[in-house]
Amino acid sequence: MRKFLLLLVIVAVALGVILIQSPLDVPEPLATGEPVKLETSDGVQAYQLDNGMKVLVIENNRAPVVVSQVWYKVGGSYEYDGITGVSHVLEHLMFKGTPKHPAGEFSEIIAANGGKENAFTAKDYTAYFQRIANDRLELCLEMEADRMRNLSLDEDEFLKELEVVKEERRLRTDDVPTALTYERFNALAYANSPYRQPIIGWMEDLDSMTIEDARDWYRTWYAPNNATLVVAGDVNAAEVAALANKYFGPLKTSVIPEIKPRREAAQYGTQRVTVKLPAKVPYLIMGYKVPVLSTATDAAEVYALEVLSGLLDGGSSARLQKNLVRGSELATSVGASYDLYAMHDSSFMLLAIPSNEVTPDAIESALKAEITAIQQTPPTQQELDRVIAQVIASKVYEQDSNFYLAMQIGSLETTGLGWQTKQAYVENVQAVTPAQIQQVAQKYFVDESLTVAVLEPLPLDETVASNARSGDQHDD
Amino acid sequence: MRKFLLLLVIVAVALGVILIQSPLDVPEPLATGEPVKLETSDGVQAYQLDNGMKVLVIENNRAPVVVSQVWYKVGGSYEYDGITGVSHVLEHLMFKGTPKHPAGEFSEIIAANGGKENAFTAKDYTAYFQRIANDRLELCLEMEADRMRNLSLDEDEFLKELEVVKEERRLRTDDVPTALTYERFNALAYANSPYRQPIIGWMEDLDSMTIEDARDWYRTWYAPNNATLVVAGDVNAAEVAALANKYFGPLKTSVIPEIKPRREAAQYGTQRVTVKLPAKVPYLIMGYKVPVLSTATDAAEVYALEVLSGLLDGGSSARLQKNLVRGSELATSVGASYDLYAMHDSSFMLLAIPSNEVTPDAIESALKAEITAIQQTPPTQQELDRVIAQVIASKVYEQDSNFYLAMQIGSLETTGLGWQTKQAYVENVQAVTPAQIQQVAQKYFVDESLTVAVLEPLPLDETVASNARSGDQHDD
Repeated sequence: MRKFLLLLVIVAVALGVILIQSPLDVPEPLATGEPVKLETSDGVQAYQLDNGMKVLVIENNRAPVVVSQVWYKVGGSYEYDGITGVSHVLEHLMFKGTPKHPAGEFSEIIAANGGKENAFTAKDYTAYFQRIANDRLELCLEMEADRMRNLSLDEDEFLKELEVVKEERRLRTDDVPTALTYERFNALAYANSPYRQPIIGWMEDLDSMTIEDARDWYRTWYAPNNATLVVAGDVNAAEVAALANKYFGPLKTSVIPEIKPRREAAQYGTQRVTVKLPAKVPYLIMGYKVPVLSTATDAAEVYALEVLSGLLDGGSSARLQKNLVRGSELATSVGASYDLYAMHDSSFMLLAIPSNEVTPDAIESALKAEITAIQQTPPTQQELDRVIAQVIASKVYEQDSNFYLAMQIGSLETTGLGWQTKQAYVENVQAVTPAQIQQVAQKYFVDESLTVAVLEPLPLDETVASNARSGDQHDD
Repeated sequence: MRKFLLLLVIVAVALGVILIQSPLDVPEPLATGEPVKLETSDGVQAYQLDNGMKVLVIENNRAPVVVSQVWYKVGGSYEYDGITGVSHVLEHLMFKGTPKHPAGEFSEIIAANGGKENAFTAKDYTAYFQRIANDRLELCLEMEADRMRNLSLDEDEFLKELEVVKEERRLRTDDVPTALTYERFNALAYANSPYRQPIIGWMEDLDSMTIEDARDWYRTWYAPNNATLVVAGDVNAAEVAALANKYFGPLKTSVIPEIKPRREAAQYGTQRVTVKLPAKVPYLIMGYKVPVLSTATDAAEVYALEVLSGLLDGGSSARLQKNLVRGSELATSVGASYDLYAMHDSSFMLLAIPSNEVTPDAIESALKAEITAIQQTPPTQQELDRVIAQVIASKVYEQDSNFYLAMQIGSLETTGLGWQTKQAYVENVQAVTPAQIQQVAQKYFVDESLTVAVLEPLPLDETVASNARSGDQHDD
């Protein structure tokens, strides 16, 4: 890369190009092709650069701001035991500077220009974003392009940041009994799927992570042909594509490895784990293995599961709220969770915090009774119409925000479903019938594919003993 | 490598060396250093070649035969989800030929010379062995050296052999309910440790395995500096070292990657899985997480666990047999299992087949009662003396066989403990006290680290339905 920059400087000087001395002090790129316009639909204008990078633009001139997001096809589910958490550690390191913009400068420049920025690592993607005045978009693109290929990955910065990440793990997982229970649920529910691994990584893996792990991960996955730029706001799409081409266009591609399917092995019966930790309230997670849009042989089943999730937990009139919280008062909090857009087969989860004096067993029975009710009797068309209206509304409301609209587009593109999948949502959800709801409940909510995790609170004064035990294990 | 061979031929011809036209038709190696004698103790004479390969020789002239074993530091525990089973697939491919010895020739030559040969893949190692007349050792070394670096790894052979391995998995795991239960036990017991993965690999991973996976694995791990030759029998150690040097000495080293510690994450409560499969009898596996010699901070605990295993299951007078099979007749078969020489933290397992009409729950209670008895009352010195004598005898009896003696030496060297560890066994086992037995039972046999897997037989006439379901999952 250094040779390449040197060549650029020589070319620039030879041509008498004036190099701008500013945060935008980037050499003019070598000539590259124009971005290719792929299509426009559902408000999204899609381009592709010569090097394979996709650029998706949503024009929305309501306010003179812009959201810029760079998405990478890598995340927790790309990892394997031994290096879990490396995607997230690398996300932290992306703020630790390049030769051109030293550690911290990215954030300072964005802040100095009135912008906000952050990043997130998820199971199936890693994304970096800024929200800024629309005339400052170029600034973001220049710096994102710079750190896509030129990250310093200094060992001292790595060692410091690794401690920050471990502290984050202690704070958000190890010290949060429900989070540890959820982590254990995943580890138990999946035998082979990467969804068994925590995104933040096992502490044992963080303890043995090296700068070389982060460097390998960066070299493998951070390349324009593994990235998507999503820009939403008061911009002109053609201008964004041209700007993107200016900064990302000259970046070299990498050979992106094909990931293993990591299909989940067959499960043959209920799996249970008790998590005993000092805590005030118990907590229950039940999960049934279900297909998702990426894996389903029949997409209709996936949309039926999506609507079923809304039927159980779609606001205060949904069944779980109505029957378990307000009705029987068995639970103080209850919910259902299903991610139809996940890359791998997933779990349809039911989560509950029992009321005082109510045992997790009693809640489990009550939740199973709700499942049985649907298996035995399909919902009425009237109930379903109401649920479908709510399911659609909550998805559509998200699109009112440039940020969440860009999130939907970016995540769909990055998980391989394609951003166009968003358009199909409303139609497919509306097509779900009462009989389909009953059928997916009968087919997938069976004991053979069930996993149950129960947090059993220990008295809080045992905290010290428990921490000592946990500490022992880390020092082994 | 081809250039290297060509050079050898040119050198050989220039020097007037006669190339032998036989299965041993190997060019004379380039000059290399002499093997270095490391030490002699406990009947083992240890050498090291220039390229780092260890050679361990046990002279035993009882019969004019020799056992030759080549051990590689790689196995199931070196793998990670997505490529599980690759070590074992590669072991199969090691019989599929080199440019010099085409597929099948290795086995044919050994058989034609009256020898027997095979190989095995385990959690922590892969080994290849021959048993042959002592004047044919050179034949084995020549061919082992050849396939250590020159394996053809042809794609057609790979695809055929992958089907053989899948068939092996169906036969030995998928069609054997106790094996599937054991597989599920491991997957559940360990959150992060590689011991959660089956050595034969998840079928889902075999389904997506490519020749490139096998080639990568071979390139990474098959090198003289990652291997140990163990020879036991009617041989002269210095001659074996010289022969080893002739064939393995010229082989190039590789940079062997450091493996991740893969330490197991803390467990916070009992984990349970029910495996429902068509079967005739139920089956129960209970496992407690325990340290092993490689990981223990106090080795005395490990030897105490070893003796405890003998106390519970060391022949017909051991407690489990006496109390559960002959006494209460609750179980038709019962056992304890602990591998103190494993590379990673492991499980101390109790396994039982309940008698007719006895539920797995009842067996679990009975096993727990045996544990509780030890936790409450240490064994008498008299009982312990008898158990220790048996534990030592069964280990020592193994050494009567050249093959098992070589196995002990080879596996200890390969897992990193060092072959000298064998010598310490008797002394350390003899030092175990009744109080230590009680202490390790109290410390490690706790519900927080327990995992239980129960095979719940389904009627056998459901076999067809179950196979169909399993088939569906593979086709997803």
